[in-house]
Amino acid sequence: MEVTTQLPRFLVSVRERCNQHLERLLPAAEERPEVIHAAMRYSVFAGGKRFRPALVVGAGKVFGAPEAALDDLACGVELIHTYSLIHDDLPCMDDDDLRRGKPTLHKVYGDGVAVLAGDALYALAFEVIAHCGSPEVIAEVARSTGTRGMIGGQVADILLEGEKITPEDLEYIHSHKTGRLITGCLVAGAMLGDARPEELEMVRAFGERVGLAFQIVDDVLDETGDAETLGKNPGSDKDRDKNTFPKMHGLEASVERAVRLVEEAKNALVLPERDTIILRMLADFVVQRVT
Amino acid sequence: MEVTTQLPRFLVSVRERCNQHLERLLPAAEERPEVIHAAMRYSVFAGGKRFRPALVVGAGKVFGAPEAALDDLACGVELIHTYSLIHDDLPCMDDDDLRRGKPTLHKVYGDGVAVLAGDALYALAFEVIAHCGSPEVIAEVARSTGTRGMIGGQVADILLEGEKITPEDLEYIHSHKTGRLITGCLVAGAMLGDARPEELEMVRAFGERVGLAFQIVDDVLDETGDAETLGKNPGSDKDRDKNTFPKMHGLEASVERAVRLVEEAKNALVLPERDTIILRMLADFVVQRVT
Repeated sequence: MEVTTQLPRFLVSVRERCNQHLERLLPAAEERPEVIHAAMRYSVFAGGKRFRPALVVGAGKVFGAPEAALDDLACGVELIHTYSLIHDDLPCMDDDDLRRGKPTLHKVYGDGVAVLAGDALYALAFEVIAHCGSPEVIAEVARSTGTRGMIGGQVADILLEGEKITPEDLEYIHSHKTGRLITGCLVAGAMLGDARPEELEMVRAFGERVGLAFQIVDDVLDETGDAETLGKNPGSDKDRDKNTFPKMHGLEASVERAVRLVEEAKNALVLPERDTIILRMLADFVVQRVT
Repeated sequence: MEVTTQLPRFLVSVRERCNQHLERLLPAAEERPEVIHAAMRYSVFAGGKRFRPALVVGAGKVFGAPEAALDDLACGVELIHTYSLIHDDLPCMDDDDLRRGKPTLHKVYGDGVAVLAGDALYALAFEVIAHCGSPEVIAEVARSTGTRGMIGGQVADILLEGEKITPEDLEYIHSHKTGRLITGCLVAGAMLGDARPEELEMVRAFGERVGLAFQIVDDVLDETGDAETLGKNPGSDKDRDKNTFPKMHGLEASVERAVRLVEEAKNALVLPERDTIILRMLADFVVQRVT
């Protein structure tokens, strides 16, 4: 009983705490210039799961990181995740109309405000993360989102859309577009605690596998899910001829790969002196939606 | 002779040093994904004056800031300035075709890559600025670029285009869109040295006036300059019915206001124990182009 309720309770507590802090951190929708603050709030409070904040807090707690710093980092990475979704949805990128069951930001506020709202969320993220007081954490997060991380993956994704690519290309796209920020959340959270360098490397290895599994599961759900549970139009990857794991390897092999990656991730965490149960549960959670 | 050559020599030395560092900091155009790195380099090395790095170094040297940290901060703010130009030029914003005498980035690489190149320069900026080792400096720069700074001004600028606005609205736009990052460069540079809180406030007051003067001069030059010296099509503000100082107050009053602001800026620097000559020269430099 304890074990089966531990993760849901953890996820709810992180989400509620994160939402409270975000409410306080985001300028009021009445503050000038009103439209940008309303736009930022529209996307941030569209009902995200706050999975990345959970990774930050989960990894931080393993290494005894202080709560206040984890709150800042958790909110910061969620702001970054939200900015990346806004820009990815733009007509000049993935051109999506629906996100988390609501019209995408540019559909409501126009493309110009959507670009600026994304930019502004990114700026706010670093202002918030700077409160952690650790330049190393700021650098880790910045690196995760740059061309050697999230943006590198997104560029390759949009440029190779509809192209015939290799399995290595696909792995590059997924591990960068989605995996790198997930890894960054875990590593940065651990850095706020007392993790030793060799422990950080284990967390990184864990994150890389969980992150890749996360995007594979996302691909699978785009084929098998319905609009209500997905919050977006299913089959949109296929419609746009996007490069996905199911397209290249089939549904069954994709699910198997994700499950195997999660096992490998857990095996990478050889930390007998630390309590890593929450991280293991978070890894399992990633594939629970398709198994 | 000494005085008349001191500023040009300073500007050249900052520019050369900054360009060398940027060359090293930006991933090679051959590094995957090649197109984004080529795009970033296209805009960063389009021939900017590196005026914001000069403000960083100028303010830092007044307060004895270490050179290595100033190099990082100087490059970081130039990356941010470049990202903001790329996004401002997009068709969904100012829709400009020419920048620094070359086609704007989206004209060459498309809108999607232009959005991502801007994002990537912003990410790299924070990675580089984190090297300074000061979370307070990172927070100051992030704040300068957010909705209470640069982006706030840009939002108001595009939303109020063609509208009848008050002189206070115009001052809000200019002091945020351009003035706030200029102020941030000066304050953050001083923070890397041993500036006391009351000294930082003087630098901030200096920056606010220089920053507003800078944008007024920019408006004036858009009316009086030619394509060759401007590096962009003159009269583009008028064509787009943008809110400018000359449009609201006339050319002569605009120049007078800029000159007065620069005087006020210099008067705000009451620092008898410090050598502020470079900052005073940088302030004069802002209005030299129109006087």
